[in-house]
Amino acid sequence: MGRTSDARNKILETAATLLEQRGYSALGVAEICATAGVPKGSFYYFFESKQALALTVIDEHWADQRRRWVELLGSDHEPLRRLRDLFEATEEVQRVGQRKAGLVTGCLFGNLALELSNQAEEVRRRLQEIFEAQIDLVERVIVEAKDRGQAGPSVDAHEAARSLVAQIEGRALLAKLLNDPAQLEALWRNGLDLLQVPPQVRAALDAESRG
Amino acid sequence: MGRTSDARNKILETAATLLEQRGYSALGVAEICATAGVPKGSFYYFFESKQALALTVIDEHWADQRRRWVELLGSDHEPLRRLRDLFEATEEVQRVGQRKAGLVTGCLFGNLALELSNQAEEVRRRLQEIFEAQIDLVERVIVEAKDRGQAGPSVDAHEAARSLVAQIEGRALLAKLLNDPAQLEALWRNGLDLLQVPPQVRAALDAESRG
Repeated sequence: MGRTSDARNKILETAATLLEQRGYSALGVAEICATAGVPKGSFYYFFESKQALALTVIDEHWADQRRRWVELLGSDHEPLRRLRDLFEATEEVQRVGQRKAGLVTGCLFGNLALELSNQAEEVRRRLQEIFEAQIDLVERVIVEAKDRGQAGPSVDAHEAARSLVAQIEGRALLAKLLNDPAQLEALWRNGLDLLQVPPQVRAALDAESRG
Repeated sequence: MGRTSDARNKILETAATLLEQRGYSALGVAEICATAGVPKGSFYYFFESKQALALTVIDEHWADQRRRWVELLGSDHEPLRRLRDLFEATEEVQRVGQRKAGLVTGCLFGNLALELSNQAEEVRRRLQEIFEAQIDLVERVIVEAKDRGQAGPSVDAHEAARSLVAQIEGRALLAKLLNDPAQLEALWRNGLDLLQVPPQVRAALDAESRG
């Protein structure tokens, strides 16, 4: 029992790394098994198909990321500070990835959304749920920011959350293309603009971050 | 001679469609030739490899898109109106694609950037050049907008152009994931925010578009 669940973990870990680095279509089950050092028979004991494996990788990655997002966006910091924490954590993830693998891998969900949306309906549905969940988490913080007068009164919290998530994905794309995590540094300024944060609030935030 | 360049065009057209729909790794030369109705020998007469073909597809797609961007962003409309024209044209391209294929295919360059950046150095370099060229074209319009007091004075034109291009890519990702071109509708509002367009300019633009 111990050995078999070990094999499952090895397959999952290897698949997560290879999926991040090379995408879905470029990968074969044989390669995943060889890299993980696990016989192909074990693979099909745990996973019905490559797609089933990818869905499990997506679920586990989202379970981790969701925990981190809930922690950062639900902290007792001021709402805008929480968004900044999220942006900085997102950049840090890409910096750590680059230090480990030499390359920025970008966002696993964004990578698979562009590669597979029109090829694997189940993957598309799962990624849709994940992006909507991300948007919901960000929206709650924007609602709080608005309540405190820290975001523009005419800002639609749900639409703005969608714009912030789109900006994260677009910046992650540039970071991957240029192999440069610093492309994500602008997220904070972009966020202030997209939320129409009033000048006096910006000035206070700048003073705080200098302090 | 007529027949051979016909074959080349057929291969290129087929490859462009398949690359947009399914990405690079999922495609094989045999499938491209079968779909184009061209013998495999002809393929290797025109293209050294699948990657060489992809680079040609990228170049031709950019030649078309660049022409359109230059036309829209260099028109005699007011600078912000030109950006709006670009956003609307971008949305329209996705609507037309959806009507033709039933599916939003997203941005070919964004798709390939996420799929291939870490696997094909020559593709990465080509896409880097294209995105930098897009950013430059947008930047020139932002400089004009700033000169006329239509964008915030503290806006860095180059950085803002980078943010707008990132926003287009992020919104194109959502449009593809949700098979919904309307995800690109927000680009205009996002653009006004990211450029810190002053309230009186926004009011004038709103009045104009209602007029």
